[in-house]
Amino acid sequence: MNEHFLEDFAVGDTYRSQRIRVDETRMRSFAAEFDPQPFHLDSDAARASIFGGLAASGWHTAAVTMRLLVDCDLKPAGGVVGAGFDEFRWPLPVRPGDELWVEVEVLEVRRSRSRPRQGILKIRMTTRNQNSEPVQIAVGNLVVRTRTAA
Amino acid sequence: MNEHFLEDFAVGDTYRSQRIRVDETRMRSFAAEFDPQPFHLDSDAARASIFGGLAASGWHTAAVTMRLLVDCDLKPAGGVVGAGFDEFRWPLPVRPGDELWVEVEVLEVRRSRSRPRQGILKIRMTTRNQNSEPVQIAVGNLVVRTRTAA
Repeated sequence: MNEHFLEDFAVGDTYRSQRIRVDETRMRSFAAEFDPQPFHLDSDAARASIFGGLAASGWHTAAVTMRLLVDCDLKPAGGVVGAGFDEFRWPLPVRPGDELWVEVEVLEVRRSRSRPRQGILKIRMTTRNQNSEPVQIAVGNLVVRTRTAA
Repeated sequence: MNEHFLEDFAVGDTYRSQRIRVDETRMRSFAAEFDPQPFHLDSDAARASIFGGLAASGWHTAAVTMRLLVDCDLKPAGGVVGAGFDEFRWPLPVRPGDELWVEVEVLEVRRSRSRPRQGILKIRMTTRNQNSEPVQIAVGNLVVRTRTAA
């Protein structure tokens, strides 16, 4: 595995993930466990809802996005450890059979003042469907190890 | 079900959920599917990591939080539909066997100017463990139906 330390990242770097298909069966079972609302479970109810049709739970989209992120070439030293988000939204619903992929852009690289062996990588993660439409946009901060205490 | 329309909410209203226990088996299987990193899967690797022991994926915590939110007495008309978050962080890891519950506080109630039949409810959701320590803090906006077009 080719790990990247904080020093290896630069503002403007981009990464692109593979694709994961979100199938209807998993969409429904995820929702049944974590987000049991009619528009995530039942096609008829979904048609009459704000989503206008069956839609994945946003948390399913977020979880799939994490899997795409972990598997892509970003590979921060110490793992993909989220410190939190400054922005997080779902501009479009995810539909049964959608194929999701993630585009990552490095927005900021910052050493910690108090902890010399780590820093913060601010990234924008845009999750897109097979038509390249954004279904989730998140600006988050990852904790990343530094190579040297410098 | 006692649905609440936008007009039924007021700044300062609070809601409190039931509890859900996050067991180690589900923690590991969730992570295996969505966040397959050593500190979420393997106790020895986790001890050497930034978490100092096995920790749930933050997305598992987020998904459990959603379930607690859907089941609590908030019950917004049209369902719990998230428009996005202004803040989202995980101040402490969730450990095997932790019992999570959520506290919701209404921060803002705002009618939509362009869509008279809906509005935005800004809420703070604090997910706590059995010791009442916060494990997730999120400030998010829900889309809620209005009772009248007023």
